Amino acid sequence: MRLVFLGTAGARPTARRGLPCACLVTDGGDVLVFDAGEGAQFAYLRSGLGWNKRMRVFITHMHGDHCLGLAGLLQTMGLQGRTEPVEVRGPAGIREFVGENARMLNHRPPFPLEVGEVGGAGESRCCAGDGYWVSARPADHTVPALSYLFVERDRPGRFYPERAARLGVPKGPMWKALQSGAAVTLEDGRSVGPREVAGPPRPGRRIGVSGDTRPTAELAAFFRGCDLLVFDSTFAEEMAERAAETGHTTAAGAARLAKDAGAKNLVLTHFSSRYPDAAALAEEAAKIHGSVRAAEDMMVVEM
Amino acid sequence: MRLVFLGTAGARPTARRGLPCACLVTDGGDVLVFDAGEGAQFAYLRSGLGWNKRMRVFITHMHGDHCLGLAGLLQTMGLQGRTEPVEVRGPAGIREFVGENARMLNHRPPFPLEVGEVGGAGESRCCAGDGYWVSARPADHTVPALSYLFVERDRPGRFYPERAARLGVPKGPMWKALQSGAAVTLEDGRSVGPREVAGPPRPGRRIGVSGDTRPTAELAAFFRGCDLLVFDSTFAEEMAERAAETGHTTAAGAARLAKDAGAKNLVLTHFSSRYPDAAALAEEAAKIHGSVRAAEDMMVVEM
Repeated sequence: MRLVFLGTAGARPTARRGLPCACLVTDGGDVLVFDAGEGAQFAYLRSGLGWNKRMRVFITHMHGDHCLGLAGLLQTMGLQGRTEPVEVRGPAGIREFVGENARMLNHRPPFPLEVGEVGGAGESRCCAGDGYWVSARPADHTVPALSYLFVERDRPGRFYPERAARLGVPKGPMWKALQSGAAVTLEDGRSVGPREVAGPPRPGRRIGVSGDTRPTAELAAFFRGCDLLVFDSTFAEEMAERAAETGHTTAAGAARLAKDAGAKNLVLTHFSSRYPDAAALAEEAAKIHGSVRAAEDMMVVEM
Repeated sequence: MRLVFLGTAGARPTARRGLPCACLVTDGGDVLVFDAGEGAQFAYLRSGLGWNKRMRVFITHMHGDHCLGLAGLLQTMGLQGRTEPVEVRGPAGIREFVGENARMLNHRPPFPLEVGEVGGAGESRCCAGDGYWVSARPADHTVPALSYLFVERDRPGRFYPERAARLGVPKGPMWKALQSGAAVTLEDGRSVGPREVAGPPRPGRRIGVSGDTRPTAELAAFFRGCDLLVFDSTFAEEMAERAAETGHTTAAGAARLAKDAGAKNLVLTHFSSRYPDAAALAEEAAKIHGSVRAAEDMMVVEM
């Protein structure tokens, strides 16, 4: 599983940073796109992530820098003869935005496109994938906004082939069954369970994506214990007042929330164009949280 | 005066070509933007053309690859504190497209923005600038589309200071008046006309931009005698049938039209992604027209 950052600027692009977009590639090869700022399709092309994958797009809020790349991404995939469906999730307004632009620009996607709006005050599951789901909950920005949490189902423990061989389990379908966590019955009537040939079940991984938001206690609870948290870090702490006014978080604020949430790793993103180098923001956050990185365009985090 | 090509791909971007956008910088410093495909603001930023100039945007038609960059361009200029007005011209639908996206994305430009739709079956003047105007006329594409023609007013002839001095015209306001084409009366009552101190008036330059279109006799007439013609060259002649089906022109077709129109120089653009190198298209056209170039992203044509 890997997370690829395609755009890491806030509000407007710079020579080095494109507009918000990050792609999570699951073990099953699904591509989950978090935000699609203008230029997402160019960055996607450069990233080599590959087209015609099962794709789900999660828009955090209806500001241009987070969603103006969606129509172009859908159009280009259509021109490439895409057949795989695309699901889009976002706050109220996303369905109108996709529908109206398709109408005004005379575009009908040749693949199944399903757009769903995520509402409600609390946490809600907004998509179910193969071995994972994604939940959303309201963030705290200047317009209705969502944070997302990718939750992988717990995985079977690590399989030890030598143990299976020692117990006389023939290689083939029975190994596969044991690997997937099921018990098997051998020809001689003996039963072998997965715990005899595999380690303990491995907890699924959790990845949080804040979108644009103030840090809130509700988000700290939502992101509790996640393995990787990608958080709004538009400003440095000395701009805390401006961050509050504009519905954003400082690097230190993101680190405090990540610490409160017990998030194992923190990646800062969505940097204001006033910071040509985000290293100072990462340093600020690193005084509070033990594992901090500043996102860069085309940065890949392997998990 | 110079024309800067910011995006030269047709329909979808490639690693080397962005989506359609070309900027004409007038002698007075106005920036006339022809089409604004997705990513226009990034290319504009890279081009160093400079912000907060008098700007007019001309959209050829309502397909995503020609106008999806408009909202982002306007938003970014707003974030940069732009105060200069922006005029947008385009076919029916452009006003709704700009207005609806601003509404759906919660964006109000902080500068005067005026969007006008160009209708009618014939040629119409759609903007009046300082020393120039721009005319539009319907093109022939799969949706309503426009071609544009930039027309510079005739300029006064070249001024010869030594002639003015010889005739006893004092340096200062009188020189300025003569340079602008007016006659002056000296203190001793003598009258001096511009033809005594300057060469013949210089005809204004004309630059045509086709947008996506089939080649038509009407467009050849519209572009008659222009100094530079930028024309749709999506395909090579061997794809003539596909060009006809999709409302585009081949390189040879563009060259034939340019020859018929007596256009002095031809620049081909809007290349299908099937042509990683447009040199073959330029060669095809060069067999028909004597001055052909294939546009490249960031190519500058000085005039």
